[in-house]
Amino acid sequence: MDLTQFRPLDDKLLVEYIKATPALSSLLGNQFDDLTIKEVGDGNLNYVYIVLGAAGSFVVKQALPYIRCIGESWPMTKERAYFEARTLKEHGGLCPEHVPEVYHFDVNMSLIAMRYLKPPHIILRKGLIAGIEYPLLAEHISEYMAKTLFKTSLLYHSTTEHRKAVAEFCGNVELCRLTEQVVFSDPYKISEYNRWTSPYLDQEAEAVREDNLLKLEVAELKSMFCERAQALIHGDLHTGSVMVTNDSTQVIDPEFAFYGPMGFDIGAFIGNLILAFFAQDGHADQENDRQLYKQWILKTIEDTWNLFQNKFIKLWNESKNGEAYLEEIYNKPELRNLVQEKYMTDLLHDTLGFGAAKMIRRIVGVAHVEDFESIQDNAKRAECERRALGLAKELLKKRREFKSISQVVAAIKEVAH
Amino acid sequence: MDLTQFRPLDDKLLVEYIKATPALSSLLGNQFDDLTIKEVGDGNLNYVYIVLGAAGSFVVKQALPYIRCIGESWPMTKERAYFEARTLKEHGGLCPEHVPEVYHFDVNMSLIAMRYLKPPHIILRKGLIAGIEYPLLAEHISEYMAKTLFKTSLLYHSTTEHRKAVAEFCGNVELCRLTEQVVFSDPYKISEYNRWTSPYLDQEAEAVREDNLLKLEVAELKSMFCERAQALIHGDLHTGSVMVTNDSTQVIDPEFAFYGPMGFDIGAFIGNLILAFFAQDGHADQENDRQLYKQWILKTIEDTWNLFQNKFIKLWNESKNGEAYLEEIYNKPELRNLVQEKYMTDLLHDTLGFGAAKMIRRIVGVAHVEDFESIQDNAKRAECERRALGLAKELLKKRREFKSISQVVAAIKEVAH
Repeated sequence: MDLTQFRPLDDKLLVEYIKATPALSSLLGNQFDDLTIKEVGDGNLNYVYIVLGAAGSFVVKQALPYIRCIGESWPMTKERAYFEARTLKEHGGLCPEHVPEVYHFDVNMSLIAMRYLKPPHIILRKGLIAGIEYPLLAEHISEYMAKTLFKTSLLYHSTTEHRKAVAEFCGNVELCRLTEQVVFSDPYKISEYNRWTSPYLDQEAEAVREDNLLKLEVAELKSMFCERAQALIHGDLHTGSVMVTNDSTQVIDPEFAFYGPMGFDIGAFIGNLILAFFAQDGHADQENDRQLYKQWILKTIEDTWNLFQNKFIKLWNESKNGEAYLEEIYNKPELRNLVQEKYMTDLLHDTLGFGAAKMIRRIVGVAHVEDFESIQDNAKRAECERRALGLAKELLKKRREFKSISQVVAAIKEVAH
Repeated sequence: MDLTQFRPLDDKLLVEYIKATPALSSLLGNQFDDLTIKEVGDGNLNYVYIVLGAAGSFVVKQALPYIRCIGESWPMTKERAYFEARTLKEHGGLCPEHVPEVYHFDVNMSLIAMRYLKPPHIILRKGLIAGIEYPLLAEHISEYMAKTLFKTSLLYHSTTEHRKAVAEFCGNVELCRLTEQVVFSDPYKISEYNRWTSPYLDQEAEAVREDNLLKLEVAELKSMFCERAQALIHGDLHTGSVMVTNDSTQVIDPEFAFYGPMGFDIGAFIGNLILAFFAQDGHADQENDRQLYKQWILKTIEDTWNLFQNKFIKLWNESKNGEAYLEEIYNKPELRNLVQEKYMTDLLHDTLGFGAAKMIRRIVGVAHVEDFESIQDNAKRAECERRALGLAKELLKKRREFKSISQVVAAIKEVAH
């Protein structure tokens, strides 16, 4: 087969492709007789195949030049696969424990082959809906965020390295534009793509569109998203981009990666945990009222931020090369503490702002979350969403008043009562 | 001569070069007999030749691969000429009234030929030292800043255009690094390049290095300079980068241009006007106490900001294409006023922060300004500088408390008394 030209794969073409690609056929020990191929892409954008052979396995992900869940009417550059592979390798180099290994990238085919995350790995979001506790989740994800964000920022890099990498990732503009539209714009205006649990939340959706203060704050966050090249962020770090088992946490799908504000990643993760929290009442039944599980989610939110902060500061204290805070200037312990406290407080506020924006768009925007969608009873689902939306609006507008994550958890509990 | 390879010009080679370059020889009507060539580069970085012929004239500027005022020991990419020519053309297209026309750019020779700004054009800084009023200065420079900053920002562009241009200007990283060092770093640490009016300001220079709050705030400004791609800024818009007559204002030398924070340009200009203000007492003599001129400078500071703000908002209200504030979302007059007020207040704070940082570095850093340097009496100069430094520290640390430019002018008057 001609490997120099793009064509969408199917099961049969995929086998041909593997046979023609030594990096992949060798992973299978060149045995193709009892291959199992399963298409499992349940995301919004791409096709994903699991390839299982007698001697080995891997996953193949192919980007098509449109958005899968909408169709060819919403084109989307397949060059996103390049930025995904590039970021998997970069973040994987910085944090190999929590990023799957890339075996092969084909720029013409927009195709990535990577480590197959075997069962019992499942998408974290599904685990949260099922009420499963992951005791190492906060430890792992905070490690991933601290390492990838710190080590792609000016706290670690020279400005020469930084501007070069920033320039490269400017090329991922189409994916950024998708975020700009669905996170920062559509929920705040009439849009054909918006939907919500109607008629229960009709007033709430309208209130979002009419809330001047909310729209003022969202504008600031959108500008920061578009202008501020703080670190190489994942760009879509919700609970559907994380696969977990009891003792493994793997971050996948960084096709939205670019140099943006760190708070967008941390906020995406924490915001989606908050959504999971508010969805629990909809999953409660006579066997399990989910009260203990809600406590675990709150503890995980608190631990994620606090562990992230500790790890991030530790990396900062160990690093000598970053150019944002030169050691000769920020030399005294009390000054170092001062700048680090300010940095982390600002980052918490960015995190709450972006996290809240991501929550809002999942309730009144185009793409919803299974946490809520899987609640069959419309009235019950609407009640869960109403509370989450109320909290999100408060977080977005008052984010600068929060001094610590425990105050955020207190605010969540307040709304939950 | 071989035009494909870089070599530093002198008067004789320049004539050869002009003869071999139709775009230039035609400007002189192909008459080379009574050419006058004068090297006039008084800046820190480049060589500048005025070429006068019977039939025409132009200026030739060549970048050498080091910093002229320091020598080959401080190398500096000659590719800066590309970014200077690129920006002269871009800003010139947006505001032709206040940017000299580029006739010819030679990437191999790092050479720009542009309009000769004939006498009585002089460098604004020299006019300010001489005590000359320029009645149209605020009107003109505010027009230049409003048009160039607004029309290269996301208030006017799509994010697609923006990221493409941002990526290109990431290539001007070496010049950005020079600013990072001399503006945001060196003044706040012991550096071999730093100097000040010693011994008078020895304590003041040390106080700058020991001021934790000042260093905390400078770090935030440095990060904004390195991370925030708000608009295509000139990058060095002090009063030495502006040439003036009574009725003409021309902005030159944008070799530091990149996508950075708007406040860095506005602050550079206003900060240097404040330096000019504090230098006046050193230029006063029995004939002229400079009191009226000081009033004129203060009025020019106030007018510059207020006119800039009015013009910027006018452009904003006329523009439909910018993606930062979509019209469908920011549709109501009261919301539009709210976001514009917030934007301008934030921009004023950025302006004061960057302006103050630029003032500080001109008093205790490597490159000083002729406004002060031309005051012969050391004690008198030190007293002028001390007041300017005191105000700059206050502006930098308390910039968020200022609600209007008139409050800034009041603070200047307070220190001047």
